[in-house]
Amino acid sequence: MEKEVVAELAIIPLGTADTGLSRYIAACLEILRNNEDIQYQLTAMGTVMQGPLSRILEVAQQMHEVPFSMGVSRVFTTLKIDDRRDRPETIERKVEAVLEFEKAKGE
Amino acid sequence: MEKEVVAELAIIPLGTADTGLSRYIAACLEILRNNEDIQYQLTAMGTVMQGPLSRILEVAQQMHEVPFSMGVSRVFTTLKIDDRRDRPETIERKVEAVLEFEKAKGE
Amino acid sequence: MEKEVVAELAIIPLGTADTGLSRYIAACLEILRNNEDIQYQLTAMGTVMQGPLSRILEVAQQMHEVPFSMGVSRVFTTLKIDDRRDRPETIERKVEAVLEFEKAKGE
Amino acid sequence: MEKEVVAELAIIPLGTADTGLSRYIAACLEILRNNEDIQYQLTAMGTVMQGPLSRILEVAQQMHEVPFSMGVSRVFTTLKIDDRRDRPETIERKVEAVLEFEKAKGE
Repeated sequence: MEKEVVAELAIIPLGTADTGLSRYIAACLEILRNNEDIQYQLTAMGTVMQGPLSRILEVAQQMHEVPFSMGVSRVFTTLKIDDRRDRPETIERKVEAVLEFEKAKGE
Repeated sequence: MEKEVVAELAIIPLGTADTGLSRYIAACLEILRNNEDIQYQLTAMGTVMQGPLSRILEVAQQMHEVPFSMGVSRVFTTLKIDDRRDRPETIERKVEAVLEFEKAKGE
Repeated sequence: MEKEVVAELAIIPLGTADTGLSRYIAACLEILRNNEDIQYQLTAMGTVMQGPLSRILEVAQQMHEVPFSMGVSRVFTTLKIDDRRDRPETIERKVEAVLEFEKAKGE
Repeated sequence: MEKEVVAELAIIPLGTADTGLSRYIAACLEILRNNEDIQYQLTAMGTVMQGPLSRILEVAQQMHEVPFSMGVSRVFTTLKIDDRRDRPETIERKVEAVLEFEKAKGE
């Protein structure tokens, strides 16, 4: 199995007259529903994703196109990639690892 | 009540011999447990926070100091702030707004 | 002298009907002209700054307010901080250090 | 000619015993010297690039691989993409547009 990375994508449509952007984000997420090899989790500030790096980049590009197809003229996208190759890493494991340190300290 | 913003903070210690950073993140989160006016949620790629902007900046600076106090010599911190003043915004509300659009489309 | 950090600030007004954002950025930069203890350099993707961390945060908050004062209802701001405490670091020095490695390799 | 975007890439090797990262950045930049369709500019906080979006993503992936080939086990990469389709945009033009507003105001 190809090594997976954990990433975070935020897609920000600019120059929309409306301040609300949720409908664009919802449309971008449809791409993820059709790519079942990518795990994802929606947060208040972006979408955390897990999958092979090349697939993450492909899907990010597809999601970046979505607001243009809805009439937006400018899109600002940020992608953060955390790629660790000394051991497998998952979305869940990264959070659990921090919580375990918190718990150990509280005891 | 002062207007609240939603933000995301990621603190990355550099030049640590170990690739694992969870113990630093766990120590940074202790700051948040002692600042009860800030709501927060740990994700795999950072910490989503909600609170007045001036308080978010104060707490971000305190959290940024933590790895130095643990012996780290270089810290790379990223802070993203989403500040919307036409209506109240919360961590939960931002996610729900997207899910509502997804649901409406699925119907 | 207080230790200085190198940082990068990007301020993105949302929900503007116009796709062009230059006039907002120009107005934000006026804040920097009035804070002479902060060195800065405008790039195509943000503003690189150098100064004491607490001053960078103060100025970032002031700059973040500018688009609101111009009628914008939502502002998305990203701040990246590179804080190295084992030696002094400047905007120029960071770039030169990379160029020296490039040059050494080319010889 | 394919529409070009302006982007910013920052590649951060983690878990290196040394705090200095310049030699990794210098090695990443060699990729850009071999891809002459991508314009770039090194800044203190990343590399600003200009080119077709698909090429930017290809090159970003290649640059992300470089620190691994030098023995690093974990790499944190951030990519910001500013994609404006209502008019051509370049690295130089983006900076000039802001400076023109500053100048107009000063007069």
